[in-house]
Amino acid sequence: MELKESLNWRYAVKKYTSDKVPQDKVNEILNATRLSASSAGIQPYKVVLVQNEEVRKKLQAASFNPQVTEASHLLVFAAYDKMKQQYIDDYMNLIAQERGVPAESLKPFRDRLQDNLLKLSDEEVFNWASRQAYIGLGTALVAAANLKVDSTPMEGFNSAEFDAILGLKEKGLRSVVILTLGYRDEENDFLAKQKKVRMPLNEFVIAV
Amino acid sequence: MELKESLNWRYAVKKYTSDKVPQDKVNEILNATRLSASSAGIQPYKVVLVQNEEVRKKLQAASFNPQVTEASHLLVFAAYDKMKQQYIDDYMNLIAQERGVPAESLKPFRDRLQDNLLKLSDEEVFNWASRQAYIGLGTALVAAANLKVDSTPMEGFNSAEFDAILGLKEKGLRSVVILTLGYRDEENDFLAKQKKVRMPLNEFVIAV
Repeated sequence: MELKESLNWRYAVKKYTSDKVPQDKVNEILNATRLSASSAGIQPYKVVLVQNEEVRKKLQAASFNPQVTEASHLLVFAAYDKMKQQYIDDYMNLIAQERGVPAESLKPFRDRLQDNLLKLSDEEVFNWASRQAYIGLGTALVAAANLKVDSTPMEGFNSAEFDAILGLKEKGLRSVVILTLGYRDEENDFLAKQKKVRMPLNEFVIAV
Repeated sequence: MELKESLNWRYAVKKYTSDKVPQDKVNEILNATRLSASSAGIQPYKVVLVQNEEVRKKLQAASFNPQVTEASHLLVFAAYDKMKQQYIDDYMNLIAQERGVPAESLKPFRDRLQDNLLKLSDEEVFNWASRQAYIGLGTALVAAANLKVDSTPMEGFNSAEFDAILGLKEKGLRSVVILTLGYRDEENDFLAKQKKVRMPLNEFVIAV
């Protein structure tokens, strides 16, 4: 599908069928998310793919939407809750390895990252990292729609409970947004046939 | 291009040629951004398309990257700095008009939005609205790459100065991220031929 068609086709599904999304499509969506842009390329977030049904039931109880268990797949986007020297070191090592360059050649980049990131408060890091996660979310939504896979991004959940159930704090992460994948139940989803509503372009864009 | 190819093709361009992106392609990118997902569909942000060269020069002086004036086009994503009853009213009127339904039928949705949004502090609104803008940014990056238009998302700028230069405060907006569009100068951009570095999928995704 063309991007514009994909964007018009997608909506936040309220009611899913019981059909499962094939694993290769889920992987394609995750991989597109992984490839998306991120500040300085550092990717300060992870995507939790929740497959354990018991865990999903617990998460369902900590959220306000039945899609958490009714959809085929559940992804939880979780952002770094603080910056650590280790993250920067790991990233520099990855770049050196992937590009086959000596680690010392990255010193100016490393210094700049350290200057910019290590001075931030935990809250500033989390806000910044959350925004990066939302670039990934935006990409995941397009990737899913391109594959004719339906999805629902959701902010209505108890993030502290999600973090506890998924053990995210110990991993230095905080949940920020969830995304379910599956197939719309067109007959039973009241939203399925409603017209997409978006601000007109001349209101959305301010020309200066 | 396939999405995966587009994502691999794109990178944050450091050096642009002087070629201009045709207006229809810029419009296509803006329109894709407009169609992207947003919490409850409310789109709490705007995109400023800066065409005035004098304004761009002033913004250049308030930013850390030469792309602000060197690229073909400059977009500034600006998020709501507070929630207002008027935004909810305008959105409800738009839905009623677009879907041809009476405004009263939207009362449950309106009540829920009001309950959720009007209680938030200005800072909470701005953080939430900024994340929505980043979904739009993620979509814009894909839309540009699909059209073989290069781009650079940038957080390195003085947002208070940008807001003053663009008169955003008076509009209830704060700048959060900027995006330039144009064409890479492959010969002179040190990043153009470097391998894209991303965390491996099995590190980016935590399977539970």
